[in-house]
Amino acid sequence: MKNFLAFNPVKLHFGKNVVQELGTSASSHGKKALLVYGGGSVLRNGSYHDTRKQLQAQGIHVTEYNGIKPNPRVENVDEAAGIGRTEGVDMVVAVGGGSVIDSAKIIAICIAEGSDAWEVMTGKHKPASALPLIAVLTLAATGTEMNAVSVLQNSETQEKIGYRNELIYPVHSFLDPSYTQSVPANHTAYGVVDLVAHCLEAWFGKGEATLSDRFVISVIKEAQEFGPKLMKDLDNYELRANIMWAATCALNNLTIYGRESGDWGVHALGHVLSFLYDTAHGATLSIIYPAWMKVLKERAGDRILQLGKELWGSSSVDQSIEGLESFFKSLGGPLKCQEEGIEAICKNEILSLMNKQDAGGMNFSLSDKEREELLEYMF
Amino acid sequence: MKNFLAFNPVKLHFGKNVVQELGTSASSHGKKALLVYGGGSVLRNGSYHDTRKQLQAQGIHVTEYNGIKPNPRVENVDEAAGIGRTEGVDMVVAVGGGSVIDSAKIIAICIAEGSDAWEVMTGKHKPASALPLIAVLTLAATGTEMNAVSVLQNSETQEKIGYRNELIYPVHSFLDPSYTQSVPANHTAYGVVDLVAHCLEAWFGKGEATLSDRFVISVIKEAQEFGPKLMKDLDNYELRANIMWAATCALNNLTIYGRESGDWGVHALGHVLSFLYDTAHGATLSIIYPAWMKVLKERAGDRILQLGKELWGSSSVDQSIEGLESFFKSLGGPLKCQEEGIEAICKNEILSLMNKQDAGGMNFSLSDKEREELLEYMF
Repeated sequence: MKNFLAFNPVKLHFGKNVVQELGTSASSHGKKALLVYGGGSVLRNGSYHDTRKQLQAQGIHVTEYNGIKPNPRVENVDEAAGIGRTEGVDMVVAVGGGSVIDSAKIIAICIAEGSDAWEVMTGKHKPASALPLIAVLTLAATGTEMNAVSVLQNSETQEKIGYRNELIYPVHSFLDPSYTQSVPANHTAYGVVDLVAHCLEAWFGKGEATLSDRFVISVIKEAQEFGPKLMKDLDNYELRANIMWAATCALNNLTIYGRESGDWGVHALGHVLSFLYDTAHGATLSIIYPAWMKVLKERAGDRILQLGKELWGSSSVDQSIEGLESFFKSLGGPLKCQEEGIEAICKNEILSLMNKQDAGGMNFSLSDKEREELLEYMF
Repeated sequence: MKNFLAFNPVKLHFGKNVVQELGTSASSHGKKALLVYGGGSVLRNGSYHDTRKQLQAQGIHVTEYNGIKPNPRVENVDEAAGIGRTEGVDMVVAVGGGSVIDSAKIIAICIAEGSDAWEVMTGKHKPASALPLIAVLTLAATGTEMNAVSVLQNSETQEKIGYRNELIYPVHSFLDPSYTQSVPANHTAYGVVDLVAHCLEAWFGKGEATLSDRFVISVIKEAQEFGPKLMKDLDNYELRANIMWAATCALNNLTIYGRESGDWGVHALGHVLSFLYDTAHGATLSIIYPAWMKVLKERAGDRILQLGKELWGSSSVDQSIEGLESFFKSLGGPLKCQEEGIEAICKNEILSLMNKQDAGGMNFSLSDKEREELLEYMF
């Protein structure tokens, strides 16, 4: 086991009506908030109104920025940060899914530091401060509500990249599963795939960490038990709650303690699809993870088999991969690019950007030849 | 799933030589420390010297209190707090196992508040502050290094009780498994039993929380895999590391999120034995948990069976209980009071104190008749 620091400072409020605790939580952080959100779903599911009401009841002045897109763009982050600076806000309050909260994390740095978002993301600017961030989560998927990671994309540089800094842990996160009851089937499925993929990125990482492995299996089993049930009963609070908490635990450090690193190759490969075709993040993972396992059959065979044994009682590597495919399929996740409207004619474009970025993992890097093979399995 | 707050502020430094980070961690908390420890083992395993050296290198003035006993006494806490107040210390640094760190938690309150320890423990004094606490753990067992709980005993009132307050989370905890390599076999076994018992107290608690259940099973499986191996290879760093991290995860909130409460009946019953005969805490749990299951065969049968299925593939309640007995036995844990030198003649004394305290759990309270039955299984 490798030395590690076990630490996560987020105060995560979980359950029905927990947003009622937001006002008093926010009031200790100042009098002016930048309220960041994206699409109209937060207007429909109640989260936006509940949050605004909480802030206003505490006399907190609210400035809004609602320009965040799915697969969030760095230009929106810069724009929002500019507004926040002009208004002199004391805190950032994010209402939405991973895109909104990931954006808000970097907005919180850029307001405090007066910095450019992409310089932060690429490590050129090393921030020393960030405004306090309060997150209200409305989609169970990325785990951003309890970690120090943000993923943004840059159209100019053709990149979608991740960034980690302890400054961007939310101070408070509010997770009311009832906000997620109206999430449509496809995005519900992508969320489950995403949480499973986060577990797998830990599982295929570097170094032995047996308890972290068991936690990986625990979280995936939770998704296995409740994901398919939820797909048939989207309005069920208890099932939403199970999946929402599983998604948090899939990426709140718990599965990584004692390892050298995760892998994150499939995420890097998936970001290429999202960048080129605006494909939903979870959909890219559903297509690529089984394909990646087929390519890595020899090199990662023992880990694929161990995974399959734990989850599906598999007795071979092939059976393990089939297990994952069936699981994703049972949720309605795509296994081929065509299901997401990406046709075979795009293969070269995808491969060329993957190769340009040398997309692969920290434990399992990929050769150009392996990426070519991967593309074959993806179509 | 019940609403909950997921939060744990401890910075837990895990691994070989992590105490090298203690000095800089401590220096931000002031210039005067009360160094609390107990028996001579911390002098022999290096932890005391390493910690002192770290504090001195930062110019931190150290006052010592070394009077903490196993099954820690409230009078020692008051004594240490008096010294700390006189010296005007800024922080408490605890080096030792659960007894030392539990004592230091209440010392940290009593110095800050000028209060009486038992008034704090019994909730008569409600503290608003505590000095920062830095813990160096030398025994894998109680989980106190990453939680907000302390257990102390009071000879006058004949009580050994637990206390919980967010003020007493250690600010930093340092866990170097190599400090535990010299722990003798019996206390190593008690530590493994203790961590398993913490998992079971969560398992037999109130309310359904499936992911917390899976984490319970994960931690027990870790103990099952590495506990017996460790008993045959006490000097093995990796095995010590596995057990040490498992003990932390057994009681750092992770297994309780979403439940109404744990049970904690077996702990309450065990405290009676410790109080009367100074029996090691882990030894009391090793004797009482299987006995308690036999008494609760009907009322908790479904949970006992589910546990056995997960851990030993059991197909009946009896098999599940036998599984736990064999496991504790394989570690060298006692199953009968006589193995700890408590003879049958003591039955009435034990029963009378258990009844006086109405010792039982938050989920499964016990009748006097059930406690009588329990006593039969304990001898």
